[in-house]
Amino acid sequence: SNMVKVAVVGGEGIGPEVTAQSQRILNWFAAKRGVPMTLREAQYGIIPYLATGKVLPDDTIEAMEEADAIVWGATGGPETKEVPAAARKAGSLLGLRSKYDLYANLRPIVANPALADSAPLKAHVLKGVDFVIIRELTSGIYFGEPRGIEMLADGQRRGFNTEQYTTNQIRRVARSAFELARTRRNKVCSVDKANVLETSVLWREEVIALHKEEFSDVELTHLYVDNAAMQIVREPAQFDVMVTGNIFGDILSDCAAMASGSLGMLPSASLGPVDKFGRRKALYEPVHGSAPDIAGKGIANPLGSILSIAMMLRMTLNRPEDADLLEKAVDAALATGARTADIAEPGAKKLSTTEMGYAVLSAL
Amino acid sequence: SNMVKVAVVGGEGIGPEVTAQSQRILNWFAAKRGVPMTLREAQYGIIPYLATGKVLPDDTIEAMEEADAIVWGATGGPETKEVPAAARKAGSLLGLRSKYDLYANLRPIVANPALADSAPLKAHVLKGVDFVIIRELTSGIYFGEPRGIEMLADGQRRGFNTEQYTTNQIRRVARSAFELARTRRNKVCSVDKANVLETSVLWREEVIALHKEEFSDVELTHLYVDNAAMQIVREPAQFDVMVTGNIFGDILSDCAAMASGSLGMLPSASLGPVDKFGRRKALYEPVHGSAPDIAGKGIANPLGSILSIAMMLRMTLNRPEDADLLEKAVDAALATGARTADIAEPGAKKLSTTEMGYAVLSAL
Ligand SMILES: CC(C)[C@H](C(=O)O)[C@@H](O)C(=O)O
Ligand SMILES: CC(C)[C@H](C(=O)O)[C@@H](O)C(=O)O
Repeated sequence: SNMVKVAVVGGEGIGPEVTAQSQRILNWFAAKRGVPMTLREAQYGIIPYLATGKVLPDDTIEAMEEADAIVWGATGGPETKEVPAAARKAGSLLGLRSKYDLYANLRPIVANPALADSAPLKAHVLKGVDFVIIRELTSGIYFGEPRGIEMLADGQRRGFNTEQYTTNQIRRVARSAFELARTRRNKVCSVDKANVLETSVLWREEVIALHKEEFSDVELTHLYVDNAAMQIVREPAQFDVMVTGNIFGDILSDCAAMASGSLGMLPSASLGPVDKFGRRKALYEPVHGSAPDIAGKGIANPLGSILSIAMMLRMTLNRPEDADLLEKAVDAALATGARTADIAEPGAKKLSTTEMGYAVLSAL
Repeated sequence: SNMVKVAVVGGEGIGPEVTAQSQRILNWFAAKRGVPMTLREAQYGIIPYLATGKVLPDDTIEAMEEADAIVWGATGGPETKEVPAAARKAGSLLGLRSKYDLYANLRPIVANPALADSAPLKAHVLKGVDFVIIRELTSGIYFGEPRGIEMLADGQRRGFNTEQYTTNQIRRVARSAFELARTRRNKVCSVDKANVLETSVLWREEVIALHKEEFSDVELTHLYVDNAAMQIVREPAQFDVMVTGNIFGDILSDCAAMASGSLGMLPSASLGPVDKFGRRKALYEPVHGSAPDIAGKGIANPLGSILSIAMMLRMTLNRPEDADLLEKAVDAALATGARTADIAEPGAKKLSTTEMGYAVLSAL
């Protein structure tokens, strides 16, 4: 059938709360716009662990296996301590990224003028901010071997990890960046630390080689990661597509979060390789984590999750008009003054997670 | 004699220009305040390379060997390409850090109210920003072995680097942080990525152990590096002393630079171990680099270098009143509206490097 299969996994912490709003949005698009998709809900975390001994039970694995797209909430609730480290590790988010080879993690950073007042950056700095960080997600120091903690002869301990990238790992994520840039303002900034790290020397050489071979129409620049962190705060509007490795992307995307007003606003998509049928497994999740301090209170911002649905409509479902529709509904809700606590000015009315979900639905 | 020996090495790019202003300030403190120091100028970079075949000639090595404090400008001018990589490497800044075991790199971040208009952060976010990032400077992924680029059997290349820390390396830099915090607001925030990296797991365990054993009076918190990058932009005033590893400190201090208005404002001190005579070799340098795009134009901001002299007065010379005097002179110069190009509002009068040096001197 041409139905797109979507697995919906709320997970832990604020994950289920925000994902519930996205699910409502998904139902609206299926019912009102005829978006051809089937949803299958599945569980992750302490609840399935207590029932099955696994944070990621077989039913959830099956749902994700058959899915074209996974709508993910968050992992690591306040209950984390109840689950032994080994059980946690067996079903970790890093394991999933690796299992489905979700190597290209797209994190759009868009400054919404309606939120300029609550952002730490000045309005003129936020003006025109609209870029995408593509973070390599399945290699680098997150996965490199050898790694561990060893005893030294003198009684000290030594911790070690391996940063590593191969030609193909660099080229495939750089390709995603060049291809995305062609659909946008045609600029790629590659970020590394080539003045110190051999891994970064190789990164830069391979990006330059691929650019020369296939993408010389795209404007390519390079920044050292320290300078990139500064430029993201100083003048974020200069960027279109930024591509970088796993740990640098982790740090830079959180640094960039403040250019959007709040971490709660940020969506992400993690894309795997295209298979022989032209399908590409993707996981859509808000950039924020499980936020144990506010979990269960019903005050989390669902917009990061909802905007991830817009990314799914565009990338997995190939429905750009529907994606635009949803993004415009979010803008409209914000323009009417709808605010969750994280983006509200002091003294302003704060919507609950559910109320914000409704605000978007009624703007649709 | 009780004269403190200072080596002054302007280096490359804007290094000599800004260092010339610091030297004037040093002369003033020697003449007018009787600060007991002898200055020895020495060269670094392409000029000695053309004369001697070494970027770091023997005379400069001798000056630095005998010095208690090194006042450093910058390395890596526009002329870098003239000097072969091997010659460059033989005298690199990383080599110096390692040679003198300058493991504790202090980077104070202070928001000057006079500069609030030119900073990208809002005035209320800048309010009360006054913290120090202590970056471990002689280990981590900058120095870890094995490292390199290898050919794989399938014709791909693979780049690899080793992140590593030992018990002693972690404890000695953490000790610097706890000791500094006791002279300030008594708070240390340790930054790592312990949810992913074993090196960070060890880092956190050792920081906690040292805290428990010797510094339980100091408030200790921990942040993951991605969250730290965000918090530095979101609410930089929350920090007092932040301590972290080499690459994280590199990125976070540039990210924090914008909380001070300009990279050009930031000083740094890199401290080695205390020897059996109670001496501690130190290198003082502005955080900005050689800035080849503006080198030789006489427009660079000398305040990063001048404020490094204040750090030297406080830490190597043990002259806290003189350090305060100099810092107040910088504040006074800024309060009268003295601005180099990097911190000037559009349309405002821009001082040259030398004029800014004079503005500070006349405020002394
Ligand atoms: C929770 C953590 C392992 C994760 C990461 O570092 O990748 C998170 O910070 C993220 O950015 O998705
Ligand atoms: C020039 C470079 C090697 C250096 C570093 O990364 O340490 C610089 O960025 C710094 O922060 O001092």
